[in-house]
Amino acid sequence: MTTSHSGVGLVSKRLFKTDEFKLVSGRTIRNVQLGYETYGRLNERGDNTILVTHYFTGTSHCAGRYTDADLEPGYWDTLIGPGRALDTDRFFVVSIDSFCNVNSLDPHVMTTGPASLDPETEKPYGLRFPLISMQDLVRSQRLVLQSLGIEKLHAVCGPSMGAMQALEWAATFPNAVDRVLAVIPGNVESDPYLIARIRSWMMPILHDPHWNNGDYYDGPRPERGLADSLRLITLDALHYNWADRTFGRRPQSPQRDPASALENLFAVESAVDDIACMRARVADANSVLYIAKMVQAFNVRSRLADIRAKVLCLPVSTDLLLFPAYAAATVTALREAGVRAESFTLESPFGHLDGLHHIVQATDTIRRFLNA
Amino acid sequence: MTTSHSGVGLVSKRLFKTDEFKLVSGRTIRNVQLGYETYGRLNERGDNTILVTHYFTGTSHCAGRYTDADLEPGYWDTLIGPGRALDTDRFFVVSIDSFCNVNSLDPHVMTTGPASLDPETEKPYGLRFPLISMQDLVRSQRLVLQSLGIEKLHAVCGPSMGAMQALEWAATFPNAVDRVLAVIPGNVESDPYLIARIRSWMMPILHDPHWNNGDYYDGPRPERGLADSLRLITLDALHYNWADRTFGRRPQSPQRDPASALENLFAVESAVDDIACMRARVADANSVLYIAKMVQAFNVRSRLADIRAKVLCLPVSTDLLLFPAYAAATVTALREAGVRAESFTLESPFGHLDGLHHIVQATDTIRRFLNA
Repeated sequence: MTTSHSGVGLVSKRLFKTDEFKLVSGRTIRNVQLGYETYGRLNERGDNTILVTHYFTGTSHCAGRYTDADLEPGYWDTLIGPGRALDTDRFFVVSIDSFCNVNSLDPHVMTTGPASLDPETEKPYGLRFPLISMQDLVRSQRLVLQSLGIEKLHAVCGPSMGAMQALEWAATFPNAVDRVLAVIPGNVESDPYLIARIRSWMMPILHDPHWNNGDYYDGPRPERGLADSLRLITLDALHYNWADRTFGRRPQSPQRDPASALENLFAVESAVDDIACMRARVADANSVLYIAKMVQAFNVRSRLADIRAKVLCLPVSTDLLLFPAYAAATVTALREAGVRAESFTLESPFGHLDGLHHIVQATDTIRRFLNA
Repeated sequence: MTTSHSGVGLVSKRLFKTDEFKLVSGRTIRNVQLGYETYGRLNERGDNTILVTHYFTGTSHCAGRYTDADLEPGYWDTLIGPGRALDTDRFFVVSIDSFCNVNSLDPHVMTTGPASLDPETEKPYGLRFPLISMQDLVRSQRLVLQSLGIEKLHAVCGPSMGAMQALEWAATFPNAVDRVLAVIPGNVESDPYLIARIRSWMMPILHDPHWNNGDYYDGPRPERGLADSLRLITLDALHYNWADRTFGRRPQSPQRDPASALENLFAVESAVDDIACMRARVADANSVLYIAKMVQAFNVRSRLADIRAKVLCLPVSTDLLLFPAYAAATVTALREAGVRAESFTLESPFGHLDGLHHIVQATDTIRRFLNA
């Protein structure tokens, strides 16, 4: 067990800059800035790097704390640290903020996207920012790694949208990736039901009058639409066990029976409202749309045979967003393409997000996979 | 097999009226009108009635066609008719539009709810209409049945919210119900995760500027919010197999790559948009809110021991809204309360709605249950 360790300790964000980045679409982004974090040390041979790719609403902050006063460490702190599955005594762990990062108002996030200033107009891009692809994320990450002297990855490891990036890495740069850890993964191309659900995440933003066709940076933010979007994202990533065991049917207030007035709520309703509003405070509505479009379009099916890495899929048994059947289909598709792929199911009650919170049960499996 | 039969044929809506209806809350509704349909004939002993209770977005139109030109029959036409599981050569089948029926703009629906004229003001009630409970639905149905000379039910049979009503019937009027068929049922009290998801169905309406605190009957309707609500309801009632096998990853238009512009869609996205907009045309936004609140508050747990009916639960194996685990918990809770309860799982690929579309596989089970 690893719980006696204190983890990676205090961490800080670093900044990667490049004057120009050419997207797969042919469009060029100027003045690119991307934040990143590193834990552990790069060894002399430069072959001990594990890249951690983040999820839809995630950032590069996957371990440690910025200050001792931080209430929570990075999202995968139980996975990453001295003696942990991604052992920072041995591995150099790097994680990078995505383009169009959803949390672009979080002061710790450094990203380039629709909320950034367009150098041509000195105003935020809004919808003038070009659409991005999963391959663009991966190619930007490669530039950041090369700036650190890293050409080859021991592994790429990511949850959810991070698992999509990990597969995209192995398909795009087959010689640069030895191992893929795809945690709570989807299919090798985004499933049509996922595509439809992601559209329902987009609609509250598109229909918020303050969204104003993406041009809201000088006026009121589309806060309601953004919170409604994040309410759906939050709920889809959980499970009925979570709602039942955490809240049951308690009313928000004992004095206000939910059955007696439209505005009286059950505790679970107001809790999800609170989570959504809290997440909305640091999020950017256009960025949600850009990341949503990117995930809908994700597709490595035709390039599976290019992959040289071995792949470990780690679905959660109760996942109601990226169902365990998706991971099973991914393993089948990879094997049919000649890729060495295996699977380990996290048995956990609270759905998709347990890929973040209950990863520790896979510690031995991950260690073995990283050593093989 | 029953496919050689032509079903109940042409049907028509009938109207029940009562000057006053007192709700469980103590509030009184005046000038109540509720539509209903009947198939088959009441026998002389008056003991061959099966009441069919409808789902959230359903109506009393569960079998037959209004005219030969109707494209679709009632939603459970494969279940109800001569020689079918609910055999109209033997049973008198009755179904009744709910208070606050979601489809209150459908000319075939007759309901009393927030879109109805308040006799005191001669204007639509809006939010001045009182909140209703599942027990109010059941008590209104009892009045309609009594107006037809029916005191006792051979069975109450309903899908989804209809299953909740069926259990509410057996708990409220134990001596009037011999059998309950709870198709795609929930728990014996609405599950907290369901409560939270129903709130996310309500938010698009509450946040549509045209909703105007429920007072929109003289102005533009909250059509976008209503369609967004119905998009979520539609998707939650389906399954990834449906999206995959029906649409796959086809773009809406071959000339418009979904990855190349925010407004370019996959076929599955535009299909769900179309379904939602079509459903929104006959729906009333306030009525969605009232039915939503009612389902959230549903709870017969403390009254299970009152039930004298035997209960057959019929979950769908792939249900992602009212999960098969809910039906299993219902059977357990009923048995613990001394109720004879059994279960038959519909093995079907497309989720919750298969409780409507694939019920025919339970024909023999239902026949046996109705004869026992």
